[in-house]
Amino acid sequence: MSEVRTKNAQSRGQSDFAQRFALLRQRRGPFCLGLDPSPELLNGWGLADGVEGLRRFCFTVLDAAADQLTAIKPQSAYFERFGSKGIAVLEECLEAIRDRESLALLDVKRGDIGSTNQAYAEAYLDARSPLKADAITVHPYLGFLALAPFVEQASLSQTGLFVVVLSSNPEGRAIQNARVSSDTSVVQSLCDAIRDYNRSVCPQSTGPIGAVVGITAEQAEETVERLAGSLILAPGLGAQGGEFAQLGKRFERAKDRVLPASSRAVLSQGPNLKPLRESIKQHREKSWEALS
Amino acid sequence: MSEVRTKNAQSRGQSDFAQRFALLRQRRGPFCLGLDPSPELLNGWGLADGVEGLRRFCFTVLDAAADQLTAIKPQSAYFERFGSKGIAVLEECLEAIRDRESLALLDVKRGDIGSTNQAYAEAYLDARSPLKADAITVHPYLGFLALAPFVEQASLSQTGLFVVVLSSNPEGRAIQNARVSSDTSVVQSLCDAIRDYNRSVCPQSTGPIGAVVGITAEQAEETVERLAGSLILAPGLGAQGGEFAQLGKRFERAKDRVLPASSRAVLSQGPNLKPLRESIKQHREKSWEALS
Repeated sequence: MSEVRTKNAQSRGQSDFAQRFALLRQRRGPFCLGLDPSPELLNGWGLADGVEGLRRFCFTVLDAAADQLTAIKPQSAYFERFGSKGIAVLEECLEAIRDRESLALLDVKRGDIGSTNQAYAEAYLDARSPLKADAITVHPYLGFLALAPFVEQASLSQTGLFVVVLSSNPEGRAIQNARVSSDTSVVQSLCDAIRDYNRSVCPQSTGPIGAVVGITAEQAEETVERLAGSLILAPGLGAQGGEFAQLGKRFERAKDRVLPASSRAVLSQGPNLKPLRESIKQHREKSWEALS
Repeated sequence: MSEVRTKNAQSRGQSDFAQRFALLRQRRGPFCLGLDPSPELLNGWGLADGVEGLRRFCFTVLDAAADQLTAIKPQSAYFERFGSKGIAVLEECLEAIRDRESLALLDVKRGDIGSTNQAYAEAYLDARSPLKADAITVHPYLGFLALAPFVEQASLSQTGLFVVVLSSNPEGRAIQNARVSSDTSVVQSLCDAIRDYNRSVCPQSTGPIGAVVGITAEQAEETVERLAGSLILAPGLGAQGGEFAQLGKRFERAKDRVLPASSRAVLSQGPNLKPLRESIKQHREKSWEALS
């Protein structure tokens, strides 16, 4: 990523996206609400499993969230289920999240060879795109260095990216724990690459490339230690088994850089606004407490 | 994937998707045309980089392809660049590909935890979805076993999936060559898992889970050997440096199971139909010859 490095080398401070995160975190706390309009949740809310149900679900959640949250994370898969009409709802949601001055963190987990990643970067991080987000999640299987177009585009548009590093699900262990050398695993090597890149462009502060680290993953703590100077998106609070105490302990070394996310545990409180709002408030406060 | 195994265990023959591929291959040969409407190609064709240019580009390619091809592979990233309007064009293209009785192989490289994969599987492999394809590409980083919802959905809808195993790009080597044990790499372990699953449901023939193996990847040959009884999607013919001789040699052991794909080398011959048709014909015939 030498070209990217040169472009960013002028600014030695915090990356633009990290700055936006830090400012919002001060006012609203570190919690990220996952917007996962799954068929199970639509059904649980008594909504039809269609585009209208999808829109109704999302805007109810966004109403309940109001301007209280640092970040809201739509899961693209649940919009893609409805094709172009679902994607049109996703566009509306991304705009509504920005209207609330929350960060729109789109969970798309894209990742391909460089030329294709360039197209994905334009789709999700270019300010002119109808699907523009403040940050997205990306896949490393085709190589950390193949992600350069995302890093470059993020630098141009003051947006961010989170590389999937360590997932909570047990099926992920085989590849993620594989050894790239006798003393380094895939997860560790990705952490090192992210940290080294961030240090090279933001030596004193938080760099532009973030990582996804599941809260309930056993090696979360050592993974976090290896990610100095990097933002961390930590899904799995609540419904996936993560707990606030675990969050505080495992992410102790990254208290001001971690963004814990929860979806089902909050969303299952709907469709009524009052319990939804109450659950959002609780998650926000408990995360803040665990990470203060 | 024990549940999936039980469901499929009744049919011990070739998987439905493999059967459809084999029948088409007999009549049309083994070539897959990549439909990559990149900004560079739109520009090279004198088209505006917008939704109308995108549609014009795609339907010119589909006109040139007529009913000559076994498979056409749109790259989703180039449609996602235009948000919901681009996805609407993708829906039209998928329908037009089916109208030509070609296999619509959508290159989306999705992959997440199981519940999210379920939603992606419905988005792309459910016959009721506006984005239904005949097969898609999927990402293994969150675990081969996390892909079970795709396998299950493919079995229900007689569609296929291709797991990204070995990419052509050099940046992919670090993770793909990592060791899951002292004598097995990530690539090898994925091949073993795919082959074993396919054997368990189709012991005498070609199973439902395919693999993506880049033609120009150095270890292509040994990877192909390890994928007995599995379909292989092999991108990289032409513009990425792959050659027909290499194709014939490296995929010798999988001559009737491999689907070589080329995009730029063909598409750069447009916008005129005559040279486009000529290039498609050449790629089709040369692939057929190399794999006969």
